[in-house]
Amino acid sequence: MVNVALEVQTKGRRAREAARILAGLETSKKNEALLAMARALEEEQETILAANARDMAAGKEKGLSRALLDRLLLNEKRIRDMAAGLRELAALPDPIGEVTSMWTRPNGLQIGRVRVPLGVIGIIYEARPNVTVDAAGLCLKTGNAAILRGGSEAFHSNQALTRVISRAATAAGAPEGAIQLIETTDREAVNLLLRANDYLDVLIPRGGAGLIRTVVENATVPVIETGVGNCHVYVDAEADLDMAQRIVINAKTQRPGVCNAMETLLVHEKVAAAFLPSLAAALKEKGVTIRGCERTRAIIPWAEVATETDWATEYLDLILAVRVVDSLDSALEHIHRYGTKHSEAIVTTNYQTAREFLARVDAAAVYVNASTRFTDGYEFGFGAEIGISTQKLHARGPMGPEQLTTFKYIIFGSGQIRQ
Amino acid sequence: MVNVALEVQTKGRRAREAARILAGLETSKKNEALLAMARALEEEQETILAANARDMAAGKEKGLSRALLDRLLLNEKRIRDMAAGLRELAALPDPIGEVTSMWTRPNGLQIGRVRVPLGVIGIIYEARPNVTVDAAGLCLKTGNAAILRGGSEAFHSNQALTRVISRAATAAGAPEGAIQLIETTDREAVNLLLRANDYLDVLIPRGGAGLIRTVVENATVPVIETGVGNCHVYVDAEADLDMAQRIVINAKTQRPGVCNAMETLLVHEKVAAAFLPSLAAALKEKGVTIRGCERTRAIIPWAEVATETDWATEYLDLILAVRVVDSLDSALEHIHRYGTKHSEAIVTTNYQTAREFLARVDAAAVYVNASTRFTDGYEFGFGAEIGISTQKLHARGPMGPEQLTTFKYIIFGSGQIRQ
Repeated sequence: MVNVALEVQTKGRRAREAARILAGLETSKKNEALLAMARALEEEQETILAANARDMAAGKEKGLSRALLDRLLLNEKRIRDMAAGLRELAALPDPIGEVTSMWTRPNGLQIGRVRVPLGVIGIIYEARPNVTVDAAGLCLKTGNAAILRGGSEAFHSNQALTRVISRAATAAGAPEGAIQLIETTDREAVNLLLRANDYLDVLIPRGGAGLIRTVVENATVPVIETGVGNCHVYVDAEADLDMAQRIVINAKTQRPGVCNAMETLLVHEKVAAAFLPSLAAALKEKGVTIRGCERTRAIIPWAEVATETDWATEYLDLILAVRVVDSLDSALEHIHRYGTKHSEAIVTTNYQTAREFLARVDAAAVYVNASTRFTDGYEFGFGAEIGISTQKLHARGPMGPEQLTTFKYIIFGSGQIRQ
Repeated sequence: MVNVALEVQTKGRRAREAARILAGLETSKKNEALLAMARALEEEQETILAANARDMAAGKEKGLSRALLDRLLLNEKRIRDMAAGLRELAALPDPIGEVTSMWTRPNGLQIGRVRVPLGVIGIIYEARPNVTVDAAGLCLKTGNAAILRGGSEAFHSNQALTRVISRAATAAGAPEGAIQLIETTDREAVNLLLRANDYLDVLIPRGGAGLIRTVVENATVPVIETGVGNCHVYVDAEADLDMAQRIVINAKTQRPGVCNAMETLLVHEKVAAAFLPSLAAALKEKGVTIRGCERTRAIIPWAEVATETDWATEYLDLILAVRVVDSLDSALEHIHRYGTKHSEAIVTTNYQTAREFLARVDAAAVYVNASTRFTDGYEFGFGAEIGISTQKLHARGPMGPEQLTTFKYIIFGSGQIRQ
């Protein structure tokens, strides 16, 4: 216990010092460090794969699920992908130092708002070792120090990855302590990080609902909540039904296990009979189970019964809840009641209905005639992503480099005093 | 206890419903409501003053300090000022609905970022009843519902003010529940608000360090921290010493009890002997006590001894700590160690020194050749202020209307699905 506290404190202090230097590091230096990290990953692939093999063996012994083992696995391709991600980061513009606005007050004071790093970012995550590299890279790009705490299943992989990239970054001119991993697997480390207000400026949990709840409920450090997406597609009375079918199938099946996949389909009663049979057949072919309201089941007799629980569930699986609604208002009411403010879509050809949906849905991303699956930092054009925020403070929706920054005011005076 | 929970829950739900309507309320309606609130304050002045008289009598009986009683007091002028504040708010531009950027992706998706209200804002504050009106007005202007919890000393005043303004707002078209006061004085209400994640999108504590610490440490609702300012002025080796004296006197004495007042003066050793004697005499005349380091006391023999505690103290009083430093680096190190990242100023004529100070100080507002007292929503030109954020997430520095908003992405598609 004492050792855990000492580790968090030591690494916290080192991160604070590193953050001061990182804040002033030139863009070219940061990019060189990112490229050096990419090269090191490739050059030291054997070490990384050997460490990962230890985690995989332990995971199999512990009886981890196939899905979990798949997330844990590293191979040549995945290492190449991580390296490619770092090279893409290096090629992105540096958000730090941008003066986003500047104005002059009647007394002559000139006030500018300049983008600066947040400082030290804590990332708490689960089994995917690639988060180690993605998060470290994005933090470095934005001039932040990173303190990483990955899941115990990936311990050796994370340790190897962190050693490789942090050594490379330091050799390329980044300060010591820019990228650090909490190396104890003692769960007390998480509790200490949650309350490490002296060392951390923000905590970003990445993982399942349980992890996120724990962090939100116990942290005194400001948190950016990520994750849960109970997303809807609403097919309006006036809709191109072919387009609607393409969008629904994409939103449900293209990658069902992620937060921007659709979980509930809402269909206007006027088009339900025309729309649902062909859709249901297509979904069935893709292996999707349908759980419907009574009116849905009158049209798709083989659909299972949807209960109250279904409307509120993020399946993350090939299951779709379907509800027939009698109006746009009913659809909006359903979304308001069960949605998690992540991504919501309407399919409609009506101008006014589209505008109302956009205006009245309270969610990070509101779509007209497109799949919810686009809520993603890369798809939005941010060039990177550290998660999708489902809260409203600071960051909302996909978080790219800009969301890892804050600002300060710089004020140019000529002797002004306040009257 | 049960009643407290019921009150928080009932008002929380009502605020959520109000927030949905407020988010879509036209600018003109919101402004009409603000003007109606201003009129009502003036028309129902007698009721308000009578309620305030009860608080004042109880406060005197309880032996509240003169300073506290002064904060608690309402009179015709203060009511007029509150009404004027609401009218100024009505005249400000509405930040809601602004599309701050919009771009098109290679697949044709058009993505816009539009400013929307946060939702429901909880404000926890202390003795000043004018916060009730200022906060309610700013929340309404920005389309947010407000749940207010003022100090028990101001209970009757806050109750009267809230009734008057919320009735006027509703009559002018704002939804019921847009402005609500938690009317129990049971402290349990604060604990419930801190964890009311279902009803509150953000909590803003306004008051002393104790209140803010309680909120930050116990809230699960996201918090915007306000307040503590241990601000410095650094007089460089190359400085216009007359200007420096004007700025130091202003930053220390113009209003010593506020967070943007200077607490510690740092003086470069090269100018200490030339600068400090005349400054000290002027400060003495203003009733300022000086606590200095050894080198300061060698120049100002009557200065008291500054200890480690002094460097870390926000006096909020006519006391000034003074330290002679040997370089810009030493000044920056002192600010890094003891500062609270609020407002920091340098007085210099050297171009490069000014740039370095601006770049290397990590604070909400960094000044060259101006008083720290300008860190203020009105002085920055925001037209209003709900507090000064000392955290880095979401809002930093003076919080005007824009800081009470968030954004959502609106995405215009033509059938796009993800590959």
